Amino acid sequence: MPDAAGLPRIVILGAGFGGLTAARALRKAAVSITLIDRQNYHLFQPLLYQVATATLSPADIAVPVRSTFRDQKNTSVLLGTVEDVDRQARLVKLADGRDVPFDYLIIATGAGHAYFGHDEWAPYAPGLKKIDDATEIRRRVLLAFEKAETEPDPARRAALLTFVIVGGGPTGVEMAGAIIELACKTLVRDFRRIDTSAARVILVEAGQRILPAFSEDLSAFAAASLRKKGVEILCGNPVTNIDAMTVTIGEEAVPARTVVWAAGVKASPAGKWLGVEGDRAGRVAVTPRLALPDDERIFVIGDTAAVEWTEGRLVPGIAPAAKQMGNHAARAICSALSCREMPTFRYRHQGNLATIGRQSAIIDFGRLRMKGFLAWLVWGAAHIYFLIGFRNRLFVMTHWVWSYLTLRQGVRLITGSTDLPE
Amino acid sequence: MPDAAGLPRIVILGAGFGGLTAARALRKAAVSITLIDRQNYHLFQPLLYQVATATLSPADIAVPVRSTFRDQKNTSVLLGTVEDVDRQARLVKLADGRDVPFDYLIIATGAGHAYFGHDEWAPYAPGLKKIDDATEIRRRVLLAFEKAETEPDPARRAALLTFVIVGGGPTGVEMAGAIIELACKTLVRDFRRIDTSAARVILVEAGQRILPAFSEDLSAFAAASLRKKGVEILCGNPVTNIDAMTVTIGEEAVPARTVVWAAGVKASPAGKWLGVEGDRAGRVAVTPRLALPDDERIFVIGDTAAVEWTEGRLVPGIAPAAKQMGNHAARAICSALSCREMPTFRYRHQGNLATIGRQSAIIDFGRLRMKGFLAWLVWGAAHIYFLIGFRNRLFVMTHWVWSYLTLRQGVRLITGSTDLPE
Repeated sequence: MPDAAGLPRIVILGAGFGGLTAARALRKAAVSITLIDRQNYHLFQPLLYQVATATLSPADIAVPVRSTFRDQKNTSVLLGTVEDVDRQARLVKLADGRDVPFDYLIIATGAGHAYFGHDEWAPYAPGLKKIDDATEIRRRVLLAFEKAETEPDPARRAALLTFVIVGGGPTGVEMAGAIIELACKTLVRDFRRIDTSAARVILVEAGQRILPAFSEDLSAFAAASLRKKGVEILCGNPVTNIDAMTVTIGEEAVPARTVVWAAGVKASPAGKWLGVEGDRAGRVAVTPRLALPDDERIFVIGDTAAVEWTEGRLVPGIAPAAKQMGNHAARAICSALSCREMPTFRYRHQGNLATIGRQSAIIDFGRLRMKGFLAWLVWGAAHIYFLIGFRNRLFVMTHWVWSYLTLRQGVRLITGSTDLPE
Repeated sequence: MPDAAGLPRIVILGAGFGGLTAARALRKAAVSITLIDRQNYHLFQPLLYQVATATLSPADIAVPVRSTFRDQKNTSVLLGTVEDVDRQARLVKLADGRDVPFDYLIIATGAGHAYFGHDEWAPYAPGLKKIDDATEIRRRVLLAFEKAETEPDPARRAALLTFVIVGGGPTGVEMAGAIIELACKTLVRDFRRIDTSAARVILVEAGQRILPAFSEDLSAFAAASLRKKGVEILCGNPVTNIDAMTVTIGEEAVPARTVVWAAGVKASPAGKWLGVEGDRAGRVAVTPRLALPDDERIFVIGDTAAVEWTEGRLVPGIAPAAKQMGNHAARAICSALSCREMPTFRYRHQGNLATIGRQSAIIDFGRLRMKGFLAWLVWGAAHIYFLIGFRNRLFVMTHWVWSYLTLRQGVRLITGSTDLPE
């Protein structure tokens, strides 16, 4: 069962917050770790919206996984796409035909976006999970202004200058705040024919209020701040259709050429690999030890896992939760290896944060609630602190200071095609 | 003929060094300028190889054209692809059907790469002219190491670790130096199974020596420096075939999965638009005033123009030459508008520069020749100085200092697909 050197083989799928933390936590263990990801970098997803809105470069929020583990000799990094898990033979099967044997498996493959059964919306409403998603959204947003500049027809011009963000969670709020600032501050003097500050940014939330994970007063503060900046907030109606030219919200058709999907998420297909039924969002149910009920050597953590928290609620799909689970899975494996009893996972909720454009944020730490500029400083400090790699901290801080002082966003590159979907 | 406000209409095609300089030089002129480019940014091409080799991010060497001209009120920036020029009607015809009328036209659309009649090599040997080229090369180079790490077959692994650069000019030399350093310094501790420093980097030059634009001793110094770093230099034989697995140099077939094309260039199709015959490299012959022989209102500058220099040689296709021509075209138009005689263009050759990896460069300023570390400092200072935009200077310098101190290249992201061409 163990590897050539007699060490237990730990395979970790996914180099997100959960997988990375688990591998890190095992750095002193006498094990042989293989960390598999389909990308060669760890992505700091909480700042991905700043790539999509041209404040940061992709490299600012991504670190090559190999260089993170270059000095952790018990860990090999493998670039590969998981296709299946053979639980009987204890093998991870990769898309290129390779098999990776394991004694313990940690699945931390995260979640993608889901269109609630409307996958035909995907070409018109990209989500925001990967770097390529972010550069695609950046391309579309910037192109919309470029096309509007030369569009003679007023109706078409208005559609080009209408940006709809579907989903009123933190990502949606952050995107809406960033796009309205791009339009009203950064771009306003760049164009000759259009008034970019006349752009409409519409944030659509099917529920009764945006940021439902926050307290009602913070959610109301965020809504008021966004409205003051010029964002239109439409709550209580779901999006019923999206095509190249129009978003339909409830019954109302809104002509809009740029749509960003920040609504549903769906867990990676870990359930399928493991042959178990996932919940509605595809998450795999695990024991309080984060292992499969019928296999204590297979752990599922992070956004891929459905873990009970309190009052029937699940642990939320946020980075701190994934990190806690990564640490727990590592500890559980160490316990098992030394024949001690596996510990039980207990989620400690630290709180929720969201920014509302430059200079304002809300923080809900339960007892400690903050809003406005001070909250924004705390938000910035927290994000820079948790950015992996000193280099990235340095660059992100420099970028922020620069764009704060100059009101210019430097990464306004349209890469790839210069056509919008038709 | 003039625009609505009675101002002469100057249309500039291309926001490279030539076009940008021309527009800038006309900033105080009572004219109406339209600057058209198919990208929304000006690209500092001399540092593009550093994007391809993961030292810089695309945004570090690109500035949005609009923001460059936001305060120059006589200039409008237009994102568009030129399809044709109607000389009779004095219209530039864009691919999306728009027509842009002009009184004076400056064509500064640069050059692309050419495969000497072997366009079938293009998928296997990307050139280095655009940002998307650079991120594609970065992707392939980094992926080759990743695939080699898991390739069990020694011959295939060797092919994955063989990098062929075709063309021994400054770009080829810079790419070869940067890739060997990536392999021997940056990546060497990142991998567990392969020895990245065993990678072969082969620089192929059909002529008798690399860097033919430099003096023989500097060229020999560069060759010796590259060899010392581990680069194999093959002179005197052209590449006769390229496919997904093999590069054939003269008669010899070299198994190699990564090929970079730094050889032929071909001017943009300005000749076709204008209905004139270009030279072998597609360049348009112009008068000593840089205008068309039969139309003094149409200028062709930069890499698109064939301009006599000395002893039958043409002005070289480098940034300083394009800038001088841009300045000249602007001056010529001002002269014509005030009914003075148009000046004659005289190229002042400032010299040639090339880096040979970190810490070494060669400089050939005619009388002043330098090589080694001091030359590298001059090269770095010159490049940072000429980078457009203070922000970019700041970031490029920070990146360089960082990667110099740490030997790490931070931008090692594989974006897009994780497959190599088959």
